[in-house]
Amino acid sequence: MADIAECADWVAVDWGTTHMRAWLMRADGTAIEQRHSDKGMGSLRREEFEPALAALLGDACGGKRLPAIVCGMAGARQGWAEAAYVAVPCAPPSISEATQVPAESLDVRILPGVKQDAPADVMRGEETQIAGLLAEKPGFEGVVCLPGTHSKWAEIADGRIVRFSTFMTGELFALISGQSVLRHSVASDVWDQPAFDDAVGEAIEQPIASMAKLFALRAEGLLHGLEPAAARARLSAYLIGAEIAAAREVYALEGRIAIVGAAGIVKAYGAALTSIGAEVRYLDAERTTLMGLTAAYAELCNS
Amino acid sequence: MADIAECADWVAVDWGTTHMRAWLMRADGTAIEQRHSDKGMGSLRREEFEPALAALLGDACGGKRLPAIVCGMAGARQGWAEAAYVAVPCAPPSISEATQVPAESLDVRILPGVKQDAPADVMRGEETQIAGLLAEKPGFEGVVCLPGTHSKWAEIADGRIVRFSTFMTGELFALISGQSVLRHSVASDVWDQPAFDDAVGEAIEQPIASMAKLFALRAEGLLHGLEPAAARARLSAYLIGAEIAAAREVYALEGRIAIVGAAGIVKAYGAALTSIGAEVRYLDAERTTLMGLTAAYAELCNS
Repeated sequence: MADIAECADWVAVDWGTTHMRAWLMRADGTAIEQRHSDKGMGSLRREEFEPALAALLGDACGGKRLPAIVCGMAGARQGWAEAAYVAVPCAPPSISEATQVPAESLDVRILPGVKQDAPADVMRGEETQIAGLLAEKPGFEGVVCLPGTHSKWAEIADGRIVRFSTFMTGELFALISGQSVLRHSVASDVWDQPAFDDAVGEAIEQPIASMAKLFALRAEGLLHGLEPAAARARLSAYLIGAEIAAAREVYALEGRIAIVGAAGIVKAYGAALTSIGAEVRYLDAERTTLMGLTAAYAELCNS
Repeated sequence: MADIAECADWVAVDWGTTHMRAWLMRADGTAIEQRHSDKGMGSLRREEFEPALAALLGDACGGKRLPAIVCGMAGARQGWAEAAYVAVPCAPPSISEATQVPAESLDVRILPGVKQDAPADVMRGEETQIAGLLAEKPGFEGVVCLPGTHSKWAEIADGRIVRFSTFMTGELFALISGQSVLRHSVASDVWDQPAFDDAVGEAIEQPIASMAKLFALRAEGLLHGLEPAAARARLSAYLIGAEIAAAREVYALEGRIAIVGAAGIVKAYGAALTSIGAEVRYLDAERTTLMGLTAAYAELCNS
């Protein structure tokens, strides 16, 4: 019986703060299998990273010491091994800048994050998605938006990250919708796209007023019976609208914008950006991460 | 031995969501004694309000069934008894609009809150502070700012609340500083007033950019060693600056502004408002609440 693992040539790893994903990969960049763990960087001591990855892989590597290319928070100072930030302007860090980690079971390389001195900013993981974007769309120029817990916006020119910005939009949405006085007013599992579309345009044009509208979501529920699904969509529109308004002061948003993210969230950002005249293209976050890691593996093979 | 309680003529009560304060009062508005309880409206069923207040007062009323004037969340629909909102424009609700509650131990009257249909907004408690402001400064005209968990701004003319707005600034500060990715970056017990002053002016002038600066508090800590006390003051400046910028689109902030609140927070708002040319006067929140409740008691005596 042919063991699937016998075909794996290397391992791709995206190691975040709260979760970790690993893929068994063929040399040509095809994923054979994905595995998922809740052993995020935030819950591990330095010596626990290799056992956590080894446990997740089990005997899938068939006893071979395969190359493992890692991006994300595993490279933070408090992570598995520090992969020091590369400063913008820079190309997404290549395998030659990776930190090699002494590990028995795998030949581990952790890709660095990217930093910006002023305005101060950092990323770990998104730079690999940008590498994936550039692998998929060689010669891409313009703005890339990576929405999420901490949304990143970056300007790309000549294959380099020129500058970037982080917005805490996703985390603010989670805190406000889950824990603030608004939590009952916006408690819904339904996504009300029309309510989002109605609100986001004004939020982009008048973002200062958005802050004044948060509590109104509760008051409208009390006084006028506003439905939680509509209130939730409006809360999202206010926060995303304010983010886009702030991004627009820094980045040119009239042209082509690549949005890299999970299915639901990229649609919301795409609707908002289209409403102000942007020409949007969508890229799946997981696929783009994998393309970035694969590009690094190809560099390793050619080095 | 003369019992202090023998002198009490009535009881003043400020019943919030998480806490309750009661004062034993003389007819002339002098407070004899204050008592404090964590039995906020949010933790009580309807039938538990009277026992909670009776337990706090103990035998301090000397067996007399004194009048009790209550403001705040006890008058909410889920509270002790609903005291339906009065709609703006209106004077702060008077005792004639209060809800009388059947209670054995006290003659209880709950003052209504105030509502605004559009933009939808509600207050419960602050209207009594506005009554106190008008009792202390008869003829006051202009803007009153009541900073707190949910800051209120109101325009007062001819003794009436013309319109008002709520900002979730205090709650956002608590959530971001206590639970977000910034929590370690802003963990400090020190208040860095110069850092606040440096940041708040720009935050008022460029509030849209403030959202983009939140994550920079963490990045500046990582890259440039920004001190937590300074980061905390800047976070406060960004949020308060955005609030003032939004308030300025609705209210005239060049003239006299009354700020009603606790000592620390009114200073921060006062510094910010003074920096844009406002002429600020400070009123203590507790004293102003008590003056509002006392005004209602005087109405009761004269009715």
